[in-house]
Amino acid sequence: MKKNDGKQIPQRVVSRLAMYFRVLTQLDASGIERISSRELGEMMSITPSQIRQDLSYFGEFGQQGYGYKVRFLHEEISKILGLKEKHSMILIGVGNLGRAIASYTNFRNRGFYLVAAFDVREEIIGKRFSDLIIKPMDELAQYLDENHVDIGILTVPASQAQEIADCLVEKDIKGIWNFAPVKLVVPEDVVVEHVHISDSLYSLSFRLREQDS
Amino acid sequence: MKKNDGKQIPQRVVSRLAMYFRVLTQLDASGIERISSRELGEMMSITPSQIRQDLSYFGEFGQQGYGYKVRFLHEEISKILGLKEKHSMILIGVGNLGRAIASYTNFRNRGFYLVAAFDVREEIIGKRFSDLIIKPMDELAQYLDENHVDIGILTVPASQAQEIADCLVEKDIKGIWNFAPVKLVVPEDVVVEHVHISDSLYSLSFRLREQDS
Repeated sequence: MKKNDGKQIPQRVVSRLAMYFRVLTQLDASGIERISSRELGEMMSITPSQIRQDLSYFGEFGQQGYGYKVRFLHEEISKILGLKEKHSMILIGVGNLGRAIASYTNFRNRGFYLVAAFDVREEIIGKRFSDLIIKPMDELAQYLDENHVDIGILTVPASQAQEIADCLVEKDIKGIWNFAPVKLVVPEDVVVEHVHISDSLYSLSFRLREQDS
Repeated sequence: MKKNDGKQIPQRVVSRLAMYFRVLTQLDASGIERISSRELGEMMSITPSQIRQDLSYFGEFGQQGYGYKVRFLHEEISKILGLKEKHSMILIGVGNLGRAIASYTNFRNRGFYLVAAFDVREEIIGKRFSDLIIKPMDELAQYLDENHVDIGILTVPASQAQEIADCLVEKDIKGIWNFAPVKLVVPEDVVVEHVHISDSLYSLSFRLREQDS
């Protein structure tokens, strides 16, 4: 983070970093060793100059006329995204979506560890989920008093999300990954990433209409 | 689609359309009748001129010095996104993620109807899901011969996604909403929206690291 002198990186740049990481993961897995910003741009439907500008927030990664070393850039972006560190996560709401998200094994490979899961429903409390036992929601506050947690995954109905977010904030959790369809109000030093699954369906609907016309 | 003379709208504009729709839905539900492009921009962390530029692809929606009528703009964007039309969808892969996505009742309110669900697992085939009976995957092709379907929702493991996509394409499905972590190869006239859930986790990880530094 030295390069940018403490200025906040624009969200669109951060979003593209995650995309670079994804594409570079694929390239590396395919055994591709280097790539030009033009080729990378074509894969991501953005311009080469956009790529250079995005990466310039963090340092110099390519060489004029050579392009980028895939594995090196992948490693560097991995560090920039914080994927070399461990993050503890708790799951709040062990419904279908919560189970799907938490079961995505790749997160663990990237340093994201699920350490506890909570739900309000009597019929699943005490049951096994993954390698955890589902805890009752009313133990959440006490659990957070006793354990440091980096990220809370919110997969609860919209009506309960703010109340739970307030509890997480009070107990000093700094990251909330919110799947509930509601905008959460949190202090400035808490980071919320809201996943809007419907946006992509609407985008698909638009494209289908565009094709038709 | 008349305004843009058949030119394809950039993906970033389409993504923001879905975001405008979401924000305007909230504003309308809160009883807010009009909003300036400045206020709307602040809510979405984009500039007023960006909003004007995005909307100019589709027509004139605001008035100088007055701003936008919330309900009117909401309606117009709803039409632009194709949310006034009905879309039939099939779910392929009735696991946790598939169940979560398909159960999101709001999609039905926007005209997206689930008409069939398929899976390969013997233990759930024939069981009830929502108001459907889960069908065996090997009936997929025949189903598509007999029924028109707009969108296929792919919530299967990455290893199976391309093969199923090929079948959907062959049977003339034009829209694929892909949750499998794999890039699908499809003909140009097929629209794929890929949901990358991990991107937002990585973005969250970045922001947490930024806060720390």
